[in-house]
Amino acid sequence: MRKIDINCDMGESFGVYTLGMDGEVIQYISSANIACGYHAGDPQVMNKTVRMARENGVRVGAHPGFPDLAGFGRRNMDCTPDEVRDFVIYQIGALKGFCTLHGVEMQHVKPHGNLYNMSVGNESLSRAIAEAIAAVDRNLIWVVLGGAQSSLVRKIASEKGIRVAFEAFPDRTYESDGTLTSRKKPGAVIEDPLKSTEQALRMALDNEITAADGTRLTMEIHTLCLHGDNPSAVHHTRSIRQALEAEGVSITPLADQV
Amino acid sequence: MRKIDINCDMGESFGVYTLGMDGEVIQYISSANIACGYHAGDPQVMNKTVRMARENGVRVGAHPGFPDLAGFGRRNMDCTPDEVRDFVIYQIGALKGFCTLHGVEMQHVKPHGNLYNMSVGNESLSRAIAEAIAAVDRNLIWVVLGGAQSSLVRKIASEKGIRVAFEAFPDRTYESDGTLTSRKKPGAVIEDPLKSTEQALRMALDNEITAADGTRLTMEIHTLCLHGDNPSAVHHTRSIRQALEAEGVSITPLADQV
Amino acid sequence: MRKIDINCDMGESFGVYTLGMDGEVIQYISSANIACGYHAGDPQVMNKTVRMARENGVRVGAHPGFPDLAGFGRRNMDCTPDEVRDFVIYQIGALKGFCTLHGVEMQHVKPHGNLYNMSVGNESLSRAIAEAIAAVDRNLIWVVLGGAQSSLVRKIASEKGIRVAFEAFPDRTYESDGTLTSRKKPGAVIEDPLKSTEQALRMALDNEITAADGTRLTMEIHTLCLHGDNPSAVHHTRSIRQALEAEGVSITPLADQV
Amino acid sequence: MRKIDINCDMGESFGVYTLGMDGEVIQYISSANIACGYHAGDPQVMNKTVRMARENGVRVGAHPGFPDLAGFGRRNMDCTPDEVRDFVIYQIGALKGFCTLHGVEMQHVKPHGNLYNMSVGNESLSRAIAEAIAAVDRNLIWVVLGGAQSSLVRKIASEKGIRVAFEAFPDRTYESDGTLTSRKKPGAVIEDPLKSTEQALRMALDNEITAADGTRLTMEIHTLCLHGDNPSAVHHTRSIRQALEAEGVSITPLADQV
Repeated sequence: MRKIDINCDMGESFGVYTLGMDGEVIQYISSANIACGYHAGDPQVMNKTVRMARENGVRVGAHPGFPDLAGFGRRNMDCTPDEVRDFVIYQIGALKGFCTLHGVEMQHVKPHGNLYNMSVGNESLSRAIAEAIAAVDRNLIWVVLGGAQSSLVRKIASEKGIRVAFEAFPDRTYESDGTLTSRKKPGAVIEDPLKSTEQALRMALDNEITAADGTRLTMEIHTLCLHGDNPSAVHHTRSIRQALEAEGVSITPLADQV
Repeated sequence: MRKIDINCDMGESFGVYTLGMDGEVIQYISSANIACGYHAGDPQVMNKTVRMARENGVRVGAHPGFPDLAGFGRRNMDCTPDEVRDFVIYQIGALKGFCTLHGVEMQHVKPHGNLYNMSVGNESLSRAIAEAIAAVDRNLIWVVLGGAQSSLVRKIASEKGIRVAFEAFPDRTYESDGTLTSRKKPGAVIEDPLKSTEQALRMALDNEITAADGTRLTMEIHTLCLHGDNPSAVHHTRSIRQALEAEGVSITPLADQV
Repeated sequence: MRKIDINCDMGESFGVYTLGMDGEVIQYISSANIACGYHAGDPQVMNKTVRMARENGVRVGAHPGFPDLAGFGRRNMDCTPDEVRDFVIYQIGALKGFCTLHGVEMQHVKPHGNLYNMSVGNESLSRAIAEAIAAVDRNLIWVVLGGAQSSLVRKIASEKGIRVAFEAFPDRTYESDGTLTSRKKPGAVIEDPLKSTEQALRMALDNEITAADGTRLTMEIHTLCLHGDNPSAVHHTRSIRQALEAEGVSITPLADQV
Repeated sequence: MRKIDINCDMGESFGVYTLGMDGEVIQYISSANIACGYHAGDPQVMNKTVRMARENGVRVGAHPGFPDLAGFGRRNMDCTPDEVRDFVIYQIGALKGFCTLHGVEMQHVKPHGNLYNMSVGNESLSRAIAEAIAAVDRNLIWVVLGGAQSSLVRKIASEKGIRVAFEAFPDRTYESDGTLTSRKKPGAVIEDPLKSTEQALRMALDNEITAADGTRLTMEIHTLCLHGDNPSAVHHTRSIRQALEAEGVSITPLADQV
């Protein structure tokens, strides 16, 4: 039976500011990437979000980002690998505090925004992130973009003694080399729910992606990144989950796959 | 044989800003209270400071404070007990990441500045702090001001299932009720090294403090708070340690006492 | 003809976080209190909000708060009067930059949240705020809670050579001494729109407030504080404005009153 | 008579953290670049530093940086030109508040660290900075790196209607195209005080720089950037000033030159 994980970024509210429909989308996912107070989130939000994940049987992961709340971690910051390693250790550790509070075992670590983007294919940043994960807990699964960089990432994960899980994006188009089409190009985001649902099915059932230029790519995929930003996103996440289940795919957390 | 711990605040540098002579004072103490990025400290400083403590055989504790870098955690902030609990969980967790990195077991938690001050004798804040410590790791020792509040603190620690260690200040004068003389009053800080050394000896050898009005107080004391802010403070910390050892006191970390 | 100003807090979004329906409520007010990046707001939001106020013919004021984004400036912070003065100078100055950009003359300064609350009746904090306003621009009007503290505030404003405007809250109940009923007491906020509209009319037409215990208070009132947090608040602000205009009250910015 | 300005970064302390020997170096410079609370500085420090500049007859400039206190503004941040413009408006405005407090007219704006570096030769960032300066006060002088980018910068300054002043670095080596040698290359910083003094003299007397490869460059230079970070830097700044005066150069603020 084909298995796939569905992950979603959560816990990105801050103080009086609310972001995302966490309470809705949590029903349709298997893994939650929880912000750790750098690009978003605060201790109260982290506490509440870990509790909510536990109550919904959703696995918890750290979602560390750049220390840039004003930019939501979506601006490139030219940090050294040592800085990145320490930022990631700090944030995983902080979230672990709340996992322990709620008796939850942390499952994974998925970097956020431009920390994720900058590290794709970048050996020194990828190694810094893997080193941070391994340092805090070797049972944590490192979630990375699947495809083009998989051999690099596998090598680093193997060096550090951690597991890796590959992620794909149903609502994004891909280049023929397996990288995501830049958001600066038209068509980078798939707006049509039918098309992204179809892409999700191909990803989950066949490990297959058709690039923007028609090239057929095959890549290992363990988890699909979906969204809960607004009612339409939540609705779409639910639809994709239902379509996957209708095709016999088992929605399965990462820890039960890798 | 009489035992006493010597603790000192450390890791309070931030970015390009250096504070404290950590590399000097570490030689004379047995427990380091390491800032966790809220009132001071950053991930690079935390990493370096935990490593330095390990290399010097000094035990590591978390030193959580209010989220107020600009005020160095020395301004009262009217946070709810729930907020305080989550701030403390967050900061202990973050420092634990670096302890794991360096294979160091965290020993204790000592709140910083006005989080420490506001919690003295305050049942709801004290309970919030104790709850945070217990939630993350029941082996952590809660360091609190000895004397006046000891029965309250003992009750809370017992409820939460954690150990408590009582702290005294060789360079501060005390009121007859066992509280510290307010810094707003003249003479609150003992400037004369001979007098503070004498007070340290009385604290360590006899669990005794002579209050400003001459009252003799007896209280349980496990640790003395000393300083490494400047060359004179470091020199004084060394002198007190030497005086204690000359009197046969064993400088012993908290974990070997309580 | 009776004149009254309607003020509303605005520009409290931050980065990706949106707060308040500024674009809606701006149509119904005469003075906007714009956050300055301490308790809320960021440079992009400030720029956009000043422009929007100009386009809608609404006068602009600075809305300085404590440096506590995580607490939205709603926690007491024990800052010295000198710190408060400098925080306020900094924030007024920063907003003035955007006023100059858009060719807008800043009209007033209204402290936010607990900076406002802590300063009510507090001579040293009130003097610090007034000194900051006077230092940057003596044409700025200082907006303060009317009633109980009016003679203190008048004395300070006179010393510093600035004008003062008194504010009242249609949706809050008052004590017999003219202070606001604490939010910790039941009934502090008037939920019934008819009642708060009626109170707004009494405030604007008669300078009169009936306290919770029935006492009739008379106080000078130049501006009513209304809200734009959500659709219901915006609707209510519009209703109050319409009710005032139906009674012949002219909605008039502070600068044309004091 | 040859005139040159000497500028130095100041007011970079923050809260309890002290950086730079401002009180010493202020005696030897003619223009102070004062941090504005983003990469360094806080309202209390800004207040104090503007007052100190006035008391020493030193002209005041804003020294805006990226919003990155932890990185001291020395990390590239991928901000949009619109964000940069608003960051600069905000910071100039904030410092202007303290200038008004002390009756000081702000003279210039010099971006800090990597905001300065990233903008060199970058048309859109340079235009964003110039636009910010022009928006707040057309009398402000824009301080930029002299040499390679001078025609670009002149064009933009002319468009925006502001004056520009060219800066040179006595303690840095230059490439043959007039840019600074990257700090990543050996020899980028001139450690020998005699050599940097000699370079300062050539810059001030002849508008001439000899690049690392021996090429002689001629460029317009209005101000030399010197340092006050430590006793040796202060001593060196004094020596250079004395050497310049001994050669008949008049140390003259920018506003009296351009």
